[in-house]
Amino acid sequence: LDRWPFFSFAIPLKLINATLRTMGAPLLLNSPISGSLILVALILDAPLTTCWGLAGLALSIIMALVLKQPQHIVTSGQVTQHGLLLGLLMGRALLHNTEHSLITTGITLALTAPLSVVAGNAMTTWLSQTNLPALTLSYILLGACVCLGLDYPDLPTSTSGILVNSSSVPNLQWSQVIEGTVRGAGQVYGCPTFASSCLILAAILLFSPTMFLQACLGTLVGSLCVLMQSNDLHRVYRGDYGRHSLLTALSLGGFFFVLNFYSCLVALAGAVMSAFIFQVMLKINMPVLTVPHVVATLVLLHTRMRGGLIKRIDLVYLTF
Amino acid sequence: LDRWPFFSFAIPLKLINATLRTMGAPLLLNSPISGSLILVALILDAPLTTCWGLAGLALSIIMALVLKQPQHIVTSGQVTQHGLLLGLLMGRALLHNTEHSLITTGITLALTAPLSVVAGNAMTTWLSQTNLPALTLSYILLGACVCLGLDYPDLPTSTSGILVNSSSVPNLQWSQVIEGTVRGAGQVYGCPTFASSCLILAAILLFSPTMFLQACLGTLVGSLCVLMQSNDLHRVYRGDYGRHSLLTALSLGGFFFVLNFYSCLVALAGAVMSAFIFQVMLKINMPVLTVPHVVATLVLLHTRMRGGLIKRIDLVYLTF
Amino acid sequence: LDRWPFFSFAIPLKLINATLRTMGAPLLLNSPISGSLILVALILDAPLTTCWGLAGLALSIIMALVLKQPQHIVTSGQVTQHGLLLGLLMGRALLHNTEHSLITTGITLALTAPLSVVAGNAMTTWLSQTNLPALTLSYILLGACVCLGLDYPDLPTSTSGILVNSSSVPNLQWSQVIEGTVRGAGQVYGCPTFASSCLILAAILLFSPTMFLQACLGTLVGSLCVLMQSNDLHRVYRGDYGRHSLLTALSLGGFFFVLNFYSCLVALAGAVMSAFIFQVMLKINMPVLTVPHVVATLVLLHTRMRGGLIKRIDLVYLTF
Repeated sequence: LDRWPFFSFAIPLKLINATLRTMGAPLLLNSPISGSLILVALILDAPLTTCWGLAGLALSIIMALVLKQPQHIVTSGQVTQHGLLLGLLMGRALLHNTEHSLITTGITLALTAPLSVVAGNAMTTWLSQTNLPALTLSYILLGACVCLGLDYPDLPTSTSGILVNSSSVPNLQWSQVIEGTVRGAGQVYGCPTFASSCLILAAILLFSPTMFLQACLGTLVGSLCVLMQSNDLHRVYRGDYGRHSLLTALSLGGFFFVLNFYSCLVALAGAVMSAFIFQVMLKINMPVLTVPHVVATLVLLHTRMRGGLIKRIDLVYLTF
Repeated sequence: LDRWPFFSFAIPLKLINATLRTMGAPLLLNSPISGSLILVALILDAPLTTCWGLAGLALSIIMALVLKQPQHIVTSGQVTQHGLLLGLLMGRALLHNTEHSLITTGITLALTAPLSVVAGNAMTTWLSQTNLPALTLSYILLGACVCLGLDYPDLPTSTSGILVNSSSVPNLQWSQVIEGTVRGAGQVYGCPTFASSCLILAAILLFSPTMFLQACLGTLVGSLCVLMQSNDLHRVYRGDYGRHSLLTALSLGGFFFVLNFYSCLVALAGAVMSAFIFQVMLKINMPVLTVPHVVATLVLLHTRMRGGLIKRIDLVYLTF
Repeated sequence: LDRWPFFSFAIPLKLINATLRTMGAPLLLNSPISGSLILVALILDAPLTTCWGLAGLALSIIMALVLKQPQHIVTSGQVTQHGLLLGLLMGRALLHNTEHSLITTGITLALTAPLSVVAGNAMTTWLSQTNLPALTLSYILLGACVCLGLDYPDLPTSTSGILVNSSSVPNLQWSQVIEGTVRGAGQVYGCPTFASSCLILAAILLFSPTMFLQACLGTLVGSLCVLMQSNDLHRVYRGDYGRHSLLTALSLGGFFFVLNFYSCLVALAGAVMSAFIFQVMLKINMPVLTVPHVVATLVLLHTRMRGGLIKRIDLVYLTF
């Protein structure tokens, strides 16, 4: 009974707790309250896609239990979030084009979600050898396989109807830029409606005001950085550019580093770098997934300064 | 004389031993008997290609002796197998198209085979810092240079005449799937005839029945995994998909992990992952070489479980 | 005052020293005399491009001071050389095509040059964990973003007018091969005129005759290696192939390894490998930057031999 702690009277409660906490895991929010807000936001935006995500998550939790992962890791969603993200990715793909049959998608999810748990476990062990978090590397590896090998689209095509009028009005509208900045938060889960994005931002605010400020700063910097360089206004309004900068700034500024002037500077650098990397991946037509966030974060987490002006929080003290 | 142990009366015997053991090195079979079976299989399938492979191997052994590599490393073929594989690659390319002249190919082999020994030595040292095997990374680096830079084809083109009739009969034939599963073993060396593949499987069986079972399981899983997703029957029948899954399952299941239920599960995960990665590489038109095997194996070798349910065998105890 | 050592009466002198030393950093020449020779060579070749380079360098030095980097690192140019190279890259792009406006390029440089310092610091810390130099990795990451994402060209297009006549005379001219070998030294900074290249070679000779010999050997091997394989005479004459081989041979042969027969062999292997990797990157149409040099050097730096026949110089003893 001790070895297998999920077989107790509290199993349903524990499963709900694990599910809600995993909802926040891609944003590093380890809290069931934030998780439920995010779940509401997802259901509001696209109920069917959310079902696919939850199915992926359920498969991942089962695999994690089969592999006898420690309870705190299953609960925090560190290795099961990849299944959730893969489910959301396939659900979104299924919604937008009818090329893939329901059965093929189901089989693909049933194969990749458990696989993402094994790969997530392996990558966490690998990177923790040098005190690095694995973030969503496992999702990137399997998501890229699914996107490239089986032709599931990663990003919705540009003609998604939300902002058709902006093509006829090519001059910059600042209100839409601000709106796009907010939408960046929703884009992390692929739901770019304004209401859902606000709910997700509220979830971050509830978890930690510091991380909220860093997230806002990051997504704003990402959008501005692009405005100065190109005129891809569609994507700025839709929050595509803000997404990766938000994730990077949030991780670097408020989570893995102790907050001070210098870590804030590194978070800004990370936001700019994410925007650059995203631009490249769009140009060379690769599936983006969370690559800009992961690359920028893993590289800049190594920043060290004389006299310890930048302090890393050791991974063993963090639960995410 | 002690410093230079190859100058003794047993030189020819030692060279033959090294050559035969190296034949099995890509499949991690460190045994002269298995090696000679594989050599016979290769000669049966394509004598000319085998000559190119042996030429590459000879150049590699000479370079390894010049670099004064320890005798057990030269004998086991750990750093010289790359030369053999490069030779087979070029020989196969020369056979199928006459674009490259004999002399250019010879010069390329004379440049790359010794280089692969230096790179193999460097990569073995690099990865052994974190207790990882280098596998065929050196072959991948140089093979990719040769394939991409000099237009040598990696895989034979689809119209290779073996299975022309299957294009007119698009429905699944299970007998051909089983045959393709067996051919997967031959594809490791690029000789997909049925007889050669059986000989190579026999070589694995002779070396270790456990590895044989894992290999069969891996290649079967790889083929099935593809059948559920796409209808690229040609490649399944020819064993292209089984090849990488076979290598990964064989390495993970029977060689680097102690065999039990959990390492078997990881081997299955590796077989599925290899099939996915192979599918991606085909789509984006990159030279495949042994990339799916190496990526899946290196990632999943890091899998750890609470209570040591998965045990790695330390590299110092392995000779391959 | 002690904490902030640049605020003393010697500031201008220190800044000039830092600037001149950084000029030589891409060639690992940590000497103000060599640096000034290289600066003269650059100004002779393209004064406007040099200004862009110096602007990038100035921005990098300011960022390095804001991040309170140790003085010896700012002076040696270890983290500020990336800004210089990015400036040269953009200046050269601006010179050859007028697609990019002056203001956009300025903003891009103002964003990327400080970013390259943060990324350079992070990568140096990362790689020094395993006793590896970061070389120009930070430049590669940001340069690739600029080239791919914003369409700045990396290499000048082939119709650059220097060698138009060689297309009508396709047979090999050995005098031009020798000239191309010399031009390889200039290509490191993107100035392929013969006079500038000679000045840069003189700078290497002044710093260390050993490194000069290795550089000559490397660039010659790189050119010859290509002549045997393809007939891309344009690029050989212009020194494109020699550039990467020069850098690799110089680093491996004379800088990071103690010079002897075996390290010389590894340097030759590195020169050949660089030429192969460059050929691949040209074929698949990726921005080349210094990728062949960095990949070949980082891989081959791991070469180890029994009995310590190849000795690495520990990074703490090197100032570059």
